[in-house]
Amino acid sequence: MEFLIQLAIMLIAAKLCADLFEIFKLPELFGAVIAGIIFGPWLGLVQADVLAQFAEVGIILLLFRIGFEEVNLKNLLKEKTRSILIGITSAFIPFLVGFSFGLIYFDLPVALFVGIALSATSISIPLGNFISAKKLDTKAGRTFLGSAIIDDLIGVIFLVIVASFVINPNMPLFSNLVELGLGFVLFGIVIGLAEYFIPKIFSHLKILIVEEAQFSITLVLVIVLAAIASSLGLSVILGGFVAGVILSRVPKLKERKFITELDAVSEGMFIPLFYAWIGLQIDFTAGFFSMFAVWLTVIAILSKFLPTWIIAMATKLNIKDSLAVAIGMIPRGEVCLAILAVGMGLGILPESLFSSFFLMILVTTFIPIIVLSKVLES
Amino acid sequence: MEFLIQLAIMLIAAKLCADLFEIFKLPELFGAVIAGIIFGPWLGLVQADVLAQFAEVGIILLLFRIGFEEVNLKNLLKEKTRSILIGITSAFIPFLVGFSFGLIYFDLPVALFVGIALSATSISIPLGNFISAKKLDTKAGRTFLGSAIIDDLIGVIFLVIVASFVINPNMPLFSNLVELGLGFVLFGIVIGLAEYFIPKIFSHLKILIVEEAQFSITLVLVIVLAAIASSLGLSVILGGFVAGVILSRVPKLKERKFITELDAVSEGMFIPLFYAWIGLQIDFTAGFFSMFAVWLTVIAILSKFLPTWIIAMATKLNIKDSLAVAIGMIPRGEVCLAILAVGMGLGILPESLFSSFFLMILVTTFIPIIVLSKVLES
Repeated sequence: MEFLIQLAIMLIAAKLCADLFEIFKLPELFGAVIAGIIFGPWLGLVQADVLAQFAEVGIILLLFRIGFEEVNLKNLLKEKTRSILIGITSAFIPFLVGFSFGLIYFDLPVALFVGIALSATSISIPLGNFISAKKLDTKAGRTFLGSAIIDDLIGVIFLVIVASFVINPNMPLFSNLVELGLGFVLFGIVIGLAEYFIPKIFSHLKILIVEEAQFSITLVLVIVLAAIASSLGLSVILGGFVAGVILSRVPKLKERKFITELDAVSEGMFIPLFYAWIGLQIDFTAGFFSMFAVWLTVIAILSKFLPTWIIAMATKLNIKDSLAVAIGMIPRGEVCLAILAVGMGLGILPESLFSSFFLMILVTTFIPIIVLSKVLES
Repeated sequence: MEFLIQLAIMLIAAKLCADLFEIFKLPELFGAVIAGIIFGPWLGLVQADVLAQFAEVGIILLLFRIGFEEVNLKNLLKEKTRSILIGITSAFIPFLVGFSFGLIYFDLPVALFVGIALSATSISIPLGNFISAKKLDTKAGRTFLGSAIIDDLIGVIFLVIVASFVINPNMPLFSNLVELGLGFVLFGIVIGLAEYFIPKIFSHLKILIVEEAQFSITLVLVIVLAAIASSLGLSVILGGFVAGVILSRVPKLKERKFITELDAVSEGMFIPLFYAWIGLQIDFTAGFFSMFAVWLTVIAILSKFLPTWIIAMATKLNIKDSLAVAIGMIPRGEVCLAILAVGMGLGILPESLFSSFFLMILVTTFIPIIVLSKVLES
């Protein structure tokens, strides 16, 4: 079918399902993915390839928003030691466990991706629970937020490192390391320049005649940083994420109009299309309920919950708070899907992996929805 | 080069050039087209194909904006008879002259497109002149606006009729007519339903929980109407245009936030990419300064100016006002490019045509920039 009709179908369906889910206080992500499943694998009306470009812009904007809204460095300073400890452990242990588990079923590159995809927590749902229980500005809340941000960051860095080795599998380890190191250094310089110039650009922007320029500049900035990261052998999602973090540190930017406009495009178009695009590639015949999917889910839950809970207790958080933080760290979602999408883009992940991960994301996300608010209010 | 890098390059370049042009009070359109020419034909860094999907959404949003902002039906009621007379004549005569002229160089379908592309006036530049001379709410201003809107409308209808015959050249005339008529009737029903339900949707929208929904609904509506028009054998630009006209009639919609958001996406992303995409396809070696291009420009000027001026005088507008209206009708621009893009999409226009039309658009647009304000202020 023509591109435009597929776009129209997928946009309506994804947005409608996402909004329905949101009305019932369920994660929008599932609504949009399910819309993709319905129109892709089930009805066969929409092809994933056709929407790939929109989905790619969607991943970048998704990671931009995560960087922009979640990574507030001031939050990281409170409960610093505990957050850093939990963040690092709860990224490394799921990675190692997931990687080892992946090796049973797949070869090395795929197994690495299984590990990375398990490392990053999905912040939004538990964050909502902490906020609505008015417990965000408590020891437990700050610990959760700090830890979850750190493991997202580590997850993105894992991705960059692994992806660079997967792209050049035949290059000697040393050259690979040099190239990756060079990529990081160059991107570091880019970030440094961006940190210096961007606040200046935005403070001069008011004198520019053209008003919509602010929206465009922001959009361009996000896409350019993603494109630079990608051309340095890093990952597009790192670019989007870094753009978000840099912009979130520009004073008073969050109140400006163009941020609302960028949100509208992201939430209203590109991000739902990204989720739907994931759904389009989920093949249920390939093992939604396979043993792999079931074990993946179990591993995903335990490898986050146990280390977090142990470290929280060891750093003298009380039992209830430790439990809340440990449950909050369980969900996987946006970042996990973005990581899988990058792996798919590199052509190394089998499509069947999406369906297994979808079961895992579904189960891990619903755990805090069901139990976290009860723990927090008890 | 990778899609994302091409997108980033083209977005920066198009937006930067468009804004530079706007700062110097020149039409943005040229800035973005020139950016496309620089990075496409000259430097060879960006391919037109890669940006085709974004350009297609761009055409639709462009026509949506034209429908939404320009076609205010109340304006058409003042100076009604004169506007209708001028509008019809100044659409049909350029069409006929352009078509006959096209037949000298090309075969029938291409010649028809040459005619249609000459029929629609570009409103924005002369409108700016009328507004800044405070002459919009005069006989001349209202006549100009009414006539220009009518010939845009006729241009889009021409396009739909011709495109449907070009798509099915082997079908007998009668079947073609029946199919086209059926398309119009069905689309008429769709428009009727849309006219009835859309204001209701928007007045109920306030009670919806999800705020960004308004932006998405509008975007979806525009794309869906374009997709419906396209699947009925009509043209995507008709769909975008009609969506604009329908929404412009919903009370108080223009003050709502999501219209600003849609504008930001259109102006900040999709429309500049559409213009740039045109530039990417302009091949100067193929005859920017050919005799065809020169004659096309002469014909474009005279076939609008003379009929408009004669009818304006005949309907008792004074000499100065008649001159102002006739000059105002000369420019071609957005709609002309959208019509050519549809023709390109159907695979019947040679790429070389873009460069000839670009010269014509350049010259016809600069005529009012140079002389209209002098005529109005004399």
